[in-house]
Amino acid sequence: MSDARPITAGVILIGNEILSGRTQDTNLHYLGQRLAALGIELAECRVIPDIEATIVAAVNHLRFAHTYVFTTGGIGPTHDDITSAAIAKAFHVDLEYNADAGEAIKRHAKSGHVNQAQRKMAYVPKGAQLIANPLSGAPGFGIENVYVMAGVPAIMQLMFDDIASRITSGAPIISLSVATDLGENTMADDLTKLQKEYPTIGIGSYPRFHNGKPSVNLVIRHTNLTRLNELKDKLTTTIARLGGSILNH
Amino acid sequence: MSDARPITAGVILIGNEILSGRTQDTNLHYLGQRLAALGIELAECRVIPDIEATIVAAVNHLRFAHTYVFTTGGIGPTHDDITSAAIAKAFHVDLEYNADAGEAIKRHAKSGHVNQAQRKMAYVPKGAQLIANPLSGAPGFGIENVYVMAGVPAIMQLMFDDIASRITSGAPIISLSVATDLGENTMADDLTKLQKEYPTIGIGSYPRFHNGKPSVNLVIRHTNLTRLNELKDKLTTTIARLGGSILNH
Repeated sequence: MSDARPITAGVILIGNEILSGRTQDTNLHYLGQRLAALGIELAECRVIPDIEATIVAAVNHLRFAHTYVFTTGGIGPTHDDITSAAIAKAFHVDLEYNADAGEAIKRHAKSGHVNQAQRKMAYVPKGAQLIANPLSGAPGFGIENVYVMAGVPAIMQLMFDDIASRITSGAPIISLSVATDLGENTMADDLTKLQKEYPTIGIGSYPRFHNGKPSVNLVIRHTNLTRLNELKDKLTTTIARLGGSILNH
Repeated sequence: MSDARPITAGVILIGNEILSGRTQDTNLHYLGQRLAALGIELAECRVIPDIEATIVAAVNHLRFAHTYVFTTGGIGPTHDDITSAAIAKAFHVDLEYNADAGEAIKRHAKSGHVNQAQRKMAYVPKGAQLIANPLSGAPGFGIENVYVMAGVPAIMQLMFDDIASRITSGAPIISLSVATDLGENTMADDLTKLQKEYPTIGIGSYPRFHNGKPSVNLVIRHTNLTRLNELKDKLTTTIARLGGSILNH
């Protein structure tokens, strides 16, 4: 992994409700954790509204910049669900009725009857592969390196399970952390030195205020657990030398 | 507001910890709500890692695309805090020591002594205006239409209070919602018609699965409460006509 070109991903969260402050997104956090476990570095995320030109531009930028692109939101039956049409436009292909998608939707329809709105969800870009939706039927889809999922977290997570089984993964990116009551100011010089000593390991320093008391969480990430443990020991020793305590959280 | 050019904003969340899945971001949700109340439409958000070139590119894209840009994260004292230097680069100005920032940091330093790491936080791009940080001293800053805040939510929120008093705001964007047990499929045709009847009001349809039961939240947003209430009445009537119930949540 350290010599190979990293596998990277971009995520696009599509939906006015996230930007308007109505909905607290949790999909990015979930995808960040799942991708790290698959050895895929989540390199950037864009949160954009339900506007076709904006979706097309974001997809076309990210699909050439990263190994994979994952989108959430906008594939339902209503007027504001325009993601599938926008993805077709981004790839310059037609949106076409997919019989397998139609069958999956019909199987989940309580009445057995499929109306026009449900039928709309069976249209996917020409050449796309379906992504299973065991919860509510209407599938997501993948086209080239772009995977299009629902925005509802429970559905998105099941769709990602389906995707995870078919994409190329790498060595899992492991994350270790050390929390301390020392301030960032006190540790900054030593952290800079350790970062230079371990240039391929990302060292993050995250201050928090909890019940008015500041603390810092030091997070180190890499695929090599042996080197991570070595660096973690040095961080622990450094904290002790500077007069700090290790916190358990 | 309906005739004037809308006031728009872009948000940039800077920090590896959000992309790695370590931290569940809450700043975007907070800013979305605050901006809506100020009549500023949050048009897009980018979540990016602590990489200088990536920060420069995002800032330079968004500052020309929107009325305002708000960034969070990366202005602390450690090696991974590179936002201030990147913003200076984006504006082609020097990063320079700001005496007022230095004083604010000194006032909050317990020992009265300011070390090199703390001193680093007093460097801001030439021409920047400071943003107060009543919690921990080290200020944020604004340069032209870009406002640079801390990533720690408690500090970010106080910094936004300071910013809110000095930026141009518009008529508050009001959000009303109606929740129902009807499925999106059943309502889709009527929603499309109502969206055509009220083209300037955003109508969002958000399905949820709660305890295995699907429900839908219809959200309408505009600055004109009279028109919103008119549309809300029509949504309620439509739901009743289609045989659905209004849910209280």
